[in-house]
Amino acid sequence: MLDRNAEQPDSLDAIRERARAVRAEARSGGFDGQTAGISPGSVQGNVAILPADWAHEFLNFCRRNPKPCPVLAVSDPGDPMLAELGDRVDIRTDVPRYRVFENGTEIDETTDISEYWRDDLVAFVIGCSFSFEEALVQSGVPVRHLDLDIECPIYKTNIPCASAGRFHGPLVVSMRPMLPKDAIRAIQITSRFPNVHGSPVHFGAPEDIGIKDINTVDYGGPVPIHKGEVPVFWGCGVTPQAVVEAAKPPFMITHKPNHLLVTDLVNAELAML
Amino acid sequence: MLDRNAEQPDSLDAIRERARAVRAEARSGGFDGQTAGISPGSVQGNVAILPADWAHEFLNFCRRNPKPCPVLAVSDPGDPMLAELGDRVDIRTDVPRYRVFENGTEIDETTDISEYWRDDLVAFVIGCSFSFEEALVQSGVPVRHLDLDIECPIYKTNIPCASAGRFHGPLVVSMRPMLPKDAIRAIQITSRFPNVHGSPVHFGAPEDIGIKDINTVDYGGPVPIHKGEVPVFWGCGVTPQAVVEAAKPPFMITHKPNHLLVTDLVNAELAML
Repeated sequence: MLDRNAEQPDSLDAIRERARAVRAEARSGGFDGQTAGISPGSVQGNVAILPADWAHEFLNFCRRNPKPCPVLAVSDPGDPMLAELGDRVDIRTDVPRYRVFENGTEIDETTDISEYWRDDLVAFVIGCSFSFEEALVQSGVPVRHLDLDIECPIYKTNIPCASAGRFHGPLVVSMRPMLPKDAIRAIQITSRFPNVHGSPVHFGAPEDIGIKDINTVDYGGPVPIHKGEVPVFWGCGVTPQAVVEAAKPPFMITHKPNHLLVTDLVNAELAML
Repeated sequence: MLDRNAEQPDSLDAIRERARAVRAEARSGGFDGQTAGISPGSVQGNVAILPADWAHEFLNFCRRNPKPCPVLAVSDPGDPMLAELGDRVDIRTDVPRYRVFENGTEIDETTDISEYWRDDLVAFVIGCSFSFEEALVQSGVPVRHLDLDIECPIYKTNIPCASAGRFHGPLVVSMRPMLPKDAIRAIQITSRFPNVHGSPVHFGAPEDIGIKDINTVDYGGPVPIHKGEVPVFWGCGVTPQAVVEAAKPPFMITHKPNHLLVTDLVNAELAML
């Protein structure tokens, strides 16, 4: 049984050992829960698995939109092992819960996709905001939804992503209200993490990016914005998820929201400068 | 007639205007020369054009090796316009000189590839060290080969790139000798430019990365290393060029070395933090 929100281990090796233990539990069927706080210090990733003839366009879409779609790893076609993310990372078994789609319709939710694996599938793993939130908290920048223990507020904007072939759609953002002094620090800190969404895309007036009512979220929970605070908006991993679902490829597998892949990468390793 | 090594214009618009003038001259056949110093402030890029069925593997190779292979733009298949790099950037005409290959053998060197363009070609533009060298010089960090007005020394290393399908080969590096205080500043400055090779990959002992004799270069010219200086090594755009040539795709077009694409991007825009 995995304990949640344990202390972050002191060494990189111990953080990786924990990540491997989480994946081993997911692989054996002993763990199929949400991954927030499950392996402090570890990089977690969103998952999208597509047929090879959709892979180039999707990789190019992500490259053109690096803030919402920071790619951590791409498998070789048909190869379920993600060597970029650690030893023995098997994308068929190591995610706690998967969703399987045919032509845009969900046909299964499962804890193991071995029976669905094909020689032409390519797995994409995309960075998530857990990594930079950990850096914010460790630097003393309060994160409202974490303090309230609710899900982060997420909004569709009117900013179009740069399209690539069959992939197009609006930028989706997450929001964290902050005092200006904390927002400045948060811009510095998240700029160091371009592989997990990087610096914000906007702060201040929500209507400037097409958000009509900050209290009406598209995903997650609304959070209160206190006097003196400004909403700060970051590119969100829901963007590629929504874009790939809208493209309705003939076959696709994703992680179930909040059930992410825990990798051997350590958040501190991703930091630039 | 384009003057070389003119002063860098004061405004971003003026820098872009100059870049457009250089491309217009290249397009009309009035300019087919080397591009170093031809448009101060502008981002220049290495070019590789491949058939679509080679594109995903090459993009994934570049993604796995971002220091030697920082991708600035990828065209949609068959589309010769590179909207990511500016208005009216036509990859068929805007590079001063091209090399055309079939099965790894050069079949033509030309100033216009319109007759070779096909509906299945994908153009890749990869960042080059001109951008960060400009930032170094502007920050007062001396760059030896620029001071001597010779080509930058370049070496093959014994470090293998992360392979992707048919693309594999050693990391190729450029070298600039520096005093430790300048090397420290250079690490800071180039870290701000991850899209144009970013921070160094090594400094000090050449033999640690498989360079037997620092005075024997694989490309470019050797430069003297003065007392108290250490050699500092950066990932080099020759890496993807060598890897793509070694893969011998049935058809391929590249820029001629030193004859790069001048883009509407401005070096200062690429800087992080």
